[in-house]
Amino acid sequence: MVGAGQLARMTCQASIGLGIGFRVLAASATDSAALVCADVVTGDYTDSGTLLAFARGCDVVTFDHEHVAGRHLDELEKAAAGQASAAVRPGAAALRYTQDKLAMRERLGALGIPCPRYARVTGLDGVCARAEEWGWPVVLKAVTGGYDGRGVWVCGTPEEAAAVLAQPVAVFAEEHVAFRAELAALVARSPYGQAAAYPVVQTVQRGGVCHEVLAPAPGLPPGLAFQAQRMALELAAELGVTGLLAVELFAAETGLVVNELAMRPHNSGHWTIEGARTSQFEQHLRAVLDLPLGDPRLAVPQVVMANVFGDGSPDIFARYTHVMAADPGVKVHLYGKQARPGRKIGHVTVLGDNAAGLRDRAARAASYLGTGNEEGA
Amino acid sequence: MVGAGQLARMTCQASIGLGIGFRVLAASATDSAALVCADVVTGDYTDSGTLLAFARGCDVVTFDHEHVAGRHLDELEKAAAGQASAAVRPGAAALRYTQDKLAMRERLGALGIPCPRYARVTGLDGVCARAEEWGWPVVLKAVTGGYDGRGVWVCGTPEEAAAVLAQPVAVFAEEHVAFRAELAALVARSPYGQAAAYPVVQTVQRGGVCHEVLAPAPGLPPGLAFQAQRMALELAAELGVTGLLAVELFAAETGLVVNELAMRPHNSGHWTIEGARTSQFEQHLRAVLDLPLGDPRLAVPQVVMANVFGDGSPDIFARYTHVMAADPGVKVHLYGKQARPGRKIGHVTVLGDNAAGLRDRAARAASYLGTGNEEGA
Repeated sequence: MVGAGQLARMTCQASIGLGIGFRVLAASATDSAALVCADVVTGDYTDSGTLLAFARGCDVVTFDHEHVAGRHLDELEKAAAGQASAAVRPGAAALRYTQDKLAMRERLGALGIPCPRYARVTGLDGVCARAEEWGWPVVLKAVTGGYDGRGVWVCGTPEEAAAVLAQPVAVFAEEHVAFRAELAALVARSPYGQAAAYPVVQTVQRGGVCHEVLAPAPGLPPGLAFQAQRMALELAAELGVTGLLAVELFAAETGLVVNELAMRPHNSGHWTIEGARTSQFEQHLRAVLDLPLGDPRLAVPQVVMANVFGDGSPDIFARYTHVMAADPGVKVHLYGKQARPGRKIGHVTVLGDNAAGLRDRAARAASYLGTGNEEGA
Repeated sequence: MVGAGQLARMTCQASIGLGIGFRVLAASATDSAALVCADVVTGDYTDSGTLLAFARGCDVVTFDHEHVAGRHLDELEKAAAGQASAAVRPGAAALRYTQDKLAMRERLGALGIPCPRYARVTGLDGVCARAEEWGWPVVLKAVTGGYDGRGVWVCGTPEEAAAVLAQPVAVFAEEHVAFRAELAALVARSPYGQAAAYPVVQTVQRGGVCHEVLAPAPGLPPGLAFQAQRMALELAAELGVTGLLAVELFAAETGLVVNELAMRPHNSGHWTIEGARTSQFEQHLRAVLDLPLGDPRLAVPQVVMANVFGDGSPDIFARYTHVMAADPGVKVHLYGKQARPGRKIGHVTVLGDNAAGLRDRAARAASYLGTGNEEGA
C-alpha cells in the first residue's frame, strides 16, 4: 500500500487476520501505519523510481490516498503489463476521477449520474455569473489535491470568492446544494467483477470535516438507500474500480446528488470494523487481491462512529482510563498520531439499537479522548 | 509479550486499535507474531539475561505461553520491584499454577474448587492401586510442560500406563471424568481488581486437541453457566491473576469439575474477536495495562469457532477463493505458519443464531482451508 496513514494502518490490521503479507511505502518511520506494520519501506511516493522499486516487490499495489501522480500510475501499470511488477488496483484510469474533480463531474454527467451544476471558471466575473443563475453561496473547488474539507470553499459573497481566486489553485464552481442529509454509499468491486454494497450511512460534517457516521442512515427511505447503492455499484463498474469506492452524496429536495468519490477505505466506513460482518479494510484487501468479497451487512441494528480530534495534548493514553471506565462498550481506535490541535487522531465506535443514544455515547467518548472534556451529541 | 505464537499475533492486532506500543520476544523472525509485529526482539526466553533485557524496555511484560521458568519470573519481578523494569502480569505466584499441575490441584483443593480425584504416583503399582479405586481408564498427566493435548495420556490398561511411566517425565494420576460436555470459562482481572467474565463456552476436543468452540455453550443451564463464571472469577481473585484466566471444565453428572487453567489468551476465546463486544486479546491488554475492562458480552446470539489444521500443503492461500466464495460470512484467521500435517495454522469464526447450522459452516470452511476437502460437522 502506497501511503502509511491511518487507512493503511487499519488495512495492515486486517491483513494480519487474512495472513496476507502487507508492505507500506511510508514517508517516515513515524507515519501512522509505519508504527505498526512489520514491513515498511520508507521513501517518497512522488518519486517515480521509488514507486517502481516498491511495486516490483509486491503482487498487488494499492493506495492509502489519491495523491500519486497520474503519470506515475501509468508507469506502474506499464511495468505491471510487462509482468515485472505488481498489478495496480485501482488502476490509473479509475483513479483519475478521484484526482481531477472536473473530469469526474464531466464523466458522471455523461453517465447520467445526478451531480450539482458546475462550471469551469477563470475569474470573479464567471463566478458571479454563475451565482446569478444558482444563487449565493457558490462552492469553489480545487480541481486537484483537495481532501477532508481542504480544497473546498463555500463562498457567500463575491469578496469571499475573490479571496479564493487569489490563491494559486485551479478551481471550478459548483452550485451549493441545500441538503437534508449527507450520505455515503460504500461498495467494493473485484477485478473478476464481483461487487458488494455496504448499507448507506449518514455522515455529519462540521466545517467540511466528517465528525460522525451513522450506519445505517437513520430514517432514510429504503428506496433512496437502494438508489444510492445502485448508483455506487454502477459507478464502480463504469469507472472500472477495483477495491473500494466511496460515493459521498447529498440527499436534497430533488433527490440524490453525488458530491465526491474516493477509491480506497474511507472515513465513512470505519464503523464496519465492528459494525459489519466484513470490515471495509478486509473488503478492500479481498477486492484488490481478486478474492471473493465478504458479507457487507450490518452486524447489529445501529452503529455510530465519531472521529477523535486532538487538542495538542501529548498524552491521549492518560484519558483511556476515564473513557473506558465510563463506557465499557465503546471501541477505541487511535492512530498513533501526534495530537496536533484539530488533527484527526482516532475514532470511536459504539454499537446498539438506538441512534440517538449511540450518538451521545460516541460523542462523549470522542470528545473526552480528544479534549479531556465530555460533550454529548 | 514473551513468545510470538498466534496468541501474540492476535494480541498484536488488538494493540493496533488501542494505539499501544507492542513488542514481542520471538525465538525466530518467522514466528507467527514476528511476521506481523512492528517491534520484534529475537532471543531465547529460556535465557535469563535475554528476558531481563527485554523487560527493561517495556512498561508491562506479559506472556504468550506458560513456559518461562519460575526462577526467571522471580528475577523479572525483582527487577520490576526495583522499578528498573516492566511490571510482570500475570505474576510469578499466579503463573506457578499453570506450570505445575500438581501444585494447581493442591491449591484448588484447598480452595474447595471441585477437581477430579488425583494422586502422586511413582510407579505402575501406584497407578493400578488408583485404578482399583477409580476404575480404568486412568489419566496420567505431566506435572509440567504439557499443553494442547500434549502431556496428557488416557490409559485404558496397565500396559498403556507402563508405557507412559517409561518416559522420562514426572507424572501424576487423575481419575477419568465421564463428562457430558467440556466447557471453558474465560475471565479477565486487572491489578486494580476489576474483573469481567465472558459467556461460558463449550469446547469440542478430538485427541485432546480443541477443534470447535461454541459460544455460548448450547443448552447449558443458566445456573451451571453462572457457577462456572463465579468459579473462574473466584479463582482469578484467589490466585491473584492479572490478565486473562481460562478455566477448562468438565460438565459431569456430579456437576462442574475443573480440568485445566491458562493465564493468557486462550483458544477457547478466539470467537471473541468478532463474537464479543471486546475481544479476549484487547481484554488481556486492558487487564495487564490496568485499564478499565471492556464489555465481555456476546455481539450476536451464537458464535462458532473451528480450528484449521494443516495438511502439509504449502499454499493455503490458494484455498481462500473457494472458502470465501462458498461462504461470504465466514471470518478467516491464518497465523502465517507452515502447514505441517496436523498443525494448528488458523481458525475460522461464523456468527448467527443457530448452533447446528453454524457448526456445519465452520467445519466446512476449516476443513477445506486445512485439507482442501469439505466435511460438515
